[in-house]
Amino acid sequence: MNKKLLGIGLASSLISLGFLTVASAADPKPKDVAEYRQSVYTIIGWNFKPIAAMVKGEVPFDAAAVARHAQYVELMSKAALEGFAKGSGPDAVKHTEAKPEIWTNWDKFETAMNDFQQEAVKLTEVAKGGDEAAIKAQFGKTAETCKACHKEFRKD
Amino acid sequence: MNKKLLGIGLASSLISLGFLTVASAADPKPKDVAEYRQSVYTIIGWNFKPIAAMVKGEVPFDAAAVARHAQYVELMSKAALEGFAKGSGPDAVKHTEAKPEIWTNWDKFETAMNDFQQEAVKLTEVAKGGDEAAIKAQFGKTAETCKACHKEFRKD
Repeated sequence: MNKKLLGIGLASSLISLGFLTVASAADPKPKDVAEYRQSVYTIIGWNFKPIAAMVKGEVPFDAAAVARHAQYVELMSKAALEGFAKGSGPDAVKHTEAKPEIWTNWDKFETAMNDFQQEAVKLTEVAKGGDEAAIKAQFGKTAETCKACHKEFRKD
Repeated sequence: MNKKLLGIGLASSLISLGFLTVASAADPKPKDVAEYRQSVYTIIGWNFKPIAAMVKGEVPFDAAAVARHAQYVELMSKAALEGFAKGSGPDAVKHTEAKPEIWTNWDKFETAMNDFQQEAVKLTEVAKGGDEAAIKAQFGKTAETCKACHKEFRKD
């Protein structure tokens, strides 16, 4: 393989980071990978729920609180994909709601995750602006990306 | 209670956020609070271990990777305290390594957590600088704050 091809190969590997097998440098076990991703989603939920409560009018709207929570949702959205290393699916892990389709249909899963990331980034931006109507609209768009991905790739 | 005293009371309550009972606006249950804090520590561990592996020389040193991981450690260090709401200790939650001393000795616990936060912030700063020796030294200081807090406030 010449240098140019090697370079392309490396770039492809980096782009397809989600395809990395579990046996990496730090060598996390499939169970650890699953626990990590479940933790990521727990923290997303922890921060998403108070925003939802404000959007629904169950608690008073607080743009600064939304901005803080949205920042954590955004950061976790960027940290989620590494929790789906190949070999950490239901074949290897007992307690997981991740469907095998994540790995058999990786490109579609990755696209769905990117959609979530993009909307989460926008939610942080909009939240910093403090415009309640805009925040509520962007919250809805973000929630839609959650639902779309769960519908296809998470067991009920 | 007159308005002035009420104001002082409110300010004190806000400062002692860790003393808030679990029954807040979003109303997370003690089990949910414990799950949240455990998730925070899972993500801290997930990001701390690869840095440790680099510091120990088990894997090649990569300052950019350290910086990314350190950022997550820092952000989680800032999100950890809200996972120790009053009423979420071993009396209320089955599976927890949190000792009752967290709540009976809250000021000391909060100080230990602040120490961790401060060292984690410095680790991110130093990691961005890229100086391997400085990063390793700051990693050691950060790890010391973990150990100090675990020793006193976490069951083995």
